[in-house]
Amino acid sequence: MAGQSFVAIIVGSRSDLEVVQKAADTLTALGVQNELRVISAHRAPDLLESYIAGALSRGAKVFICAAGLAAHLPGVVASKTTNPVIGLPMPGNLAGGLDALLSIVQMPKGVPVATVGVGQAENAALLAAQMLGLSDPAIAKAVVDHRAAARRQIEDDPTNQA
Amino acid sequence: MAGQSFVAIIVGSRSDLEVVQKAADTLTALGVQNELRVISAHRAPDLLESYIAGALSRGAKVFICAAGLAAHLPGVVASKTTNPVIGLPMPGNLAGGLDALLSIVQMPKGVPVATVGVGQAENAALLAAQMLGLSDPAIAKAVVDHRAAARRQIEDDPTNQA
Amino acid sequence: MAGQSFVAIIVGSRSDLEVVQKAADTLTALGVQNELRVISAHRAPDLLESYIAGALSRGAKVFICAAGLAAHLPGVVASKTTNPVIGLPMPGNLAGGLDALLSIVQMPKGVPVATVGVGQAENAALLAAQMLGLSDPAIAKAVVDHRAAARRQIEDDPTNQA
Amino acid sequence: MAGQSFVAIIVGSRSDLEVVQKAADTLTALGVQNELRVISAHRAPDLLESYIAGALSRGAKVFICAAGLAAHLPGVVASKTTNPVIGLPMPGNLAGGLDALLSIVQMPKGVPVATVGVGQAENAALLAAQMLGLSDPAIAKAVVDHRAAARRQIEDDPTNQA
Amino acid sequence: MAGQSFVAIIVGSRSDLEVVQKAADTLTALGVQNELRVISAHRAPDLLESYIAGALSRGAKVFICAAGLAAHLPGVVASKTTNPVIGLPMPGNLAGGLDALLSIVQMPKGVPVATVGVGQAENAALLAAQMLGLSDPAIAKAVVDHRAAARRQIEDDPTNQA
Amino acid sequence: MAGQSFVAIIVGSRSDLEVVQKAADTLTALGVQNELRVISAHRAPDLLESYIAGALSRGAKVFICAAGLAAHLPGVVASKTTNPVIGLPMPGNLAGGLDALLSIVQMPKGVPVATVGVGQAENAALLAAQMLGLSDPAIAKAVVDHRAAARRQIEDDPTNQA
Amino acid sequence: MAGQSFVAIIVGSRSDLEVVQKAADTLTALGVQNELRVISAHRAPDLLESYIAGALSRGAKVFICAAGLAAHLPGVVASKTTNPVIGLPMPGNLAGGLDALLSIVQMPKGVPVATVGVGQAENAALLAAQMLGLSDPAIAKAVVDHRAAARRQIEDDPTNQA
Amino acid sequence: MAGQSFVAIIVGSRSDLEVVQKAADTLTALGVQNELRVISAHRAPDLLESYIAGALSRGAKVFICAAGLAAHLPGVVASKTTNPVIGLPMPGNLAGGLDALLSIVQMPKGVPVATVGVGQAENAALLAAQMLGLSDPAIAKAVVDHRAAARRQIEDDPTNQA
Repeated sequence: MAGQSFVAIIVGSRSDLEVVQKAADTLTALGVQNELRVISAHRAPDLLESYIAGALSRGAKVFICAAGLAAHLPGVVASKTTNPVIGLPMPGNLAGGLDALLSIVQMPKGVPVATVGVGQAENAALLAAQMLGLSDPAIAKAVVDHRAAARRQIEDDPTNQA
Repeated sequence: MAGQSFVAIIVGSRSDLEVVQKAADTLTALGVQNELRVISAHRAPDLLESYIAGALSRGAKVFICAAGLAAHLPGVVASKTTNPVIGLPMPGNLAGGLDALLSIVQMPKGVPVATVGVGQAENAALLAAQMLGLSDPAIAKAVVDHRAAARRQIEDDPTNQA
Repeated sequence: MAGQSFVAIIVGSRSDLEVVQKAADTLTALGVQNELRVISAHRAPDLLESYIAGALSRGAKVFICAAGLAAHLPGVVASKTTNPVIGLPMPGNLAGGLDALLSIVQMPKGVPVATVGVGQAENAALLAAQMLGLSDPAIAKAVVDHRAAARRQIEDDPTNQA
Repeated sequence: MAGQSFVAIIVGSRSDLEVVQKAADTLTALGVQNELRVISAHRAPDLLESYIAGALSRGAKVFICAAGLAAHLPGVVASKTTNPVIGLPMPGNLAGGLDALLSIVQMPKGVPVATVGVGQAENAALLAAQMLGLSDPAIAKAVVDHRAAARRQIEDDPTNQA
Repeated sequence: MAGQSFVAIIVGSRSDLEVVQKAADTLTALGVQNELRVISAHRAPDLLESYIAGALSRGAKVFICAAGLAAHLPGVVASKTTNPVIGLPMPGNLAGGLDALLSIVQMPKGVPVATVGVGQAENAALLAAQMLGLSDPAIAKAVVDHRAAARRQIEDDPTNQA
Repeated sequence: MAGQSFVAIIVGSRSDLEVVQKAADTLTALGVQNELRVISAHRAPDLLESYIAGALSRGAKVFICAAGLAAHLPGVVASKTTNPVIGLPMPGNLAGGLDALLSIVQMPKGVPVATVGVGQAENAALLAAQMLGLSDPAIAKAVVDHRAAARRQIEDDPTNQA
Repeated sequence: MAGQSFVAIIVGSRSDLEVVQKAADTLTALGVQNELRVISAHRAPDLLESYIAGALSRGAKVFICAAGLAAHLPGVVASKTTNPVIGLPMPGNLAGGLDALLSIVQMPKGVPVATVGVGQAENAALLAAQMLGLSDPAIAKAVVDHRAAARRQIEDDPTNQA
Repeated sequence: MAGQSFVAIIVGSRSDLEVVQKAADTLTALGVQNELRVISAHRAPDLLESYIAGALSRGAKVFICAAGLAAHLPGVVASKTTNPVIGLPMPGNLAGGLDALLSIVQMPKGVPVATVGVGQAENAALLAAQMLGLSDPAIAKAVVDHRAAARRQIEDDPTNQA
């Protein structure tokens, strides 16, 4: 994938892989190159660091980082790059995922993480595509089309034909 | 400002203007064109809609939307554009701003808002600059320099010389 | 339905339709005309706006808006009309629906939403009927009868005959 | 005031009187007759009951009930009338007023309370006026004018002239 | 039951009857007279009031009131008597029952409710027995014996014999 | 004070003494003997245990235990006696005292603590008096008089004379 | 086990035994002597006190205390020894275990409890082993090996071979 | 300080230095060598990593890490060493520091952080001393003496002499 722009998706635990796979699928459907890795910020910090460096050199533009509990993965990645990092909190645990949400979104001054809703893997992918679409018209068009399709689904809802 | 890329900053209430001004100042310091407006999504929805359309036609690439309480402004803007929208929850009210945070970050499938921490206006600006930096090397360099300056401040902290 | 007073019920997502149908059923049982639509404030804002305008011209007096997560639907509708808007937060997600509740009830100064309990679709309908009953004696009587029936159910509870 | 429609405002504690006075002032400004009483649901339940009965016989159409902590006042009033009851949670105490909010909004099936945001006394008044405006064109017009004035204030904001 | 001391147990909704029955069973096991009624404070306020008055005249010494959501039942009973009222919050709904807990325990100055843990029906019964045991040695002894039995169960736990 | 019934008030920290003094003053005003001690359950467990034993032998009937943070004092006292223990959570810290409230009220099966609202020292005293009033007519009358005085204060409120 | 260093694990309720057994298993796997008891701080305070004293005299170095609800067990043990006490909050109840977490971690000045995440029994064991490893090289090495094994599991994850 | 055992205290932000200084002072008072640094995990990750490595080589046995907001510092340090890491959440922000608390304590399986209460700097120091006291009798004695002094302060409280 060297030289080509792509989105690097990292999930902190294999148990969250199924949810996060939807981010990869959405990106692929939008025509955005992407790759997915399972790397814990806490249990494999050196692997994470070397992966980030390698991904950046191979053309990673945006990172999507998914984690639960005391979810440090997005913030740790954000501390290693100034490219945009999207944080995806995983549901479960305290108050349905409030612990993961607060651990991701409440980043201190200087190191932002672009946080999406708890478990909203598709939105993480859309946000990454929106960022890339700022300079890639094909991706921008794919996002516009995706939004239009969602709108048509509502317009065609049988309840609304009553 | 027609034709030139810029970040459009909208704040829902004049009472939050002072906090949000820091986002504008940070963008300016990073060399990012920006403009700031006070428009309530609830009290002036038509003005908001016309401002969004106009800003997009004039070159707005990223929106920063700051609001408190049931903070709908970022989501409403996100429903009107597929450009990236950054949500900035204002502190105060319930549990120190939990109402604004949840109202902004928990966006449903299809319409993401890139949320930063409660009251973190500077991070909203940095995130916008990171997005624009994906295709603008001068902005990318400004973000890298900003991070390096923050690092040097820590290295030079007198406590760390002990 | 043109010219006749009715309650317009809008639900933001098809997945919440079953719960919200109870609001429509309750209104019908109380003799209140109503119609139900599935329209997302975020994914179909223009459709929502045209529906609101049309419903008002056809005689919509009160709106019931049901949504979950960052539930902007009631507030967005309230920004487009000065008729009463009832907000119905959907359960699930953070802390059992706290995100939807705060996103609906914490409306800022100038644009109220009359919020009922999380998932309390029947109460949303009763509240709409109470509002219409202020000037429609038949509806007012239906609400009084409904309350009396609930009271008799308690009086007749077998536990209370012990 | 006998025979004339009015809004009855009840506040559970003298300490909250200043906040609630804004509801009365807003109603008066909108041309809505109103009266304000300080009656605790817990410390003076009989006085409350007799006040409700008397107010209804004198023409009370809508009740606004403001209370903090375990705020039972709105629910108790709602159990004694099928006219609309608006609940206004008072700030302070746990998590900035979460206790009052939940005690008011989470009413069980059959007895709704139309809840507005914590401390939003003006919104309580506006909501009452919206209800009365359904059958009183003068009040309806006053609410429309109030909304328009808020919109103009935003349009005229000096920040937006930049 | 006239003339004899007893504990009056009231539950706000039939759906909570199974949990609350454990309070009645525990009281009976401790030799404390008790009776159980299903009365909603909101849907049948007059029945509740007449029940309280009747129960007091027949010898009710302590009330146990169980309710969920915006749980006003214990507070309403406490406003009608100066005998001790025990509040038993029902689980479910927001954050596992936080709404019921706050609605019961956060009573304002002057009207206390003795609140036990969410869903802890047996503890409500034990607390009532402790109160009556202050002047009834047989009940006091039954409570002491109950505590001793719980202690022996721990002493005899097979894990502790390892 | 040997041989005479009294209420033993224990506060876990000197810093909360001022709030808790109101419980003692209220008891005295109601004609209930009481004594107040500052004993931390965590820093002086043996002193606490010997105080409890001594107080019981001297005639302590009810304990009022006030504590903040991880407030174990009421539960620890409740584990050492089967007399009623009233828990008084102190405000401050997380969410305005939610930590103290949950640490006190959520007692497990078998060992209840009668919890009052956060910081409601007067209510703790009233509840103790209500318990003692079950068998002491003078105290029962004092509680009734106290309630009546609160009611008269509302009846005489100048706002209600309007 | 007399004379030999070990970790004493106490769980407050038999219903939590299965979760806590993982702490014992992890300690055993790390070569750390341990024993497990089921003792409620509230229902058997004297047994708890005598167990702590006995365990200390037999060589207990670290205590792991697991409890739910108003979880006083860790704090009570910490008040009886100055050896390190690890608190393990049990999930369930309010907000997924927030009550247990706050009851354990928010210990006041002077008596710390080393708290791990809700339900994280393995982490409680690892933390105990880390403490003992400060002076026992074999245990220190076992902890290092355990971390390395977790890291290798991530390196070998099939997703990462893509 | 090379070769000598010590506690390394790291605080993530200069603004929290005053609170954390109390941990250093307490350790010094207990006769425990310590050093204090201001290093942000997010703004200076490489400096943090090199500091950890250097501190370990110079004899750091235990780390105390203080941070607020999305407080990753303790977890990041814990991912770099298997020595015990004590997490100290800073107050402020959401719900009085709930964001920092959850970000620190909810560490996933395999990498524990020994968390103390929000803002309890002295307890962090005591916990570190308890760990070192397991193999250093002088420190163990200092901790015992510290506890005894706290107990005597309670015994000598003037309120308790009444």
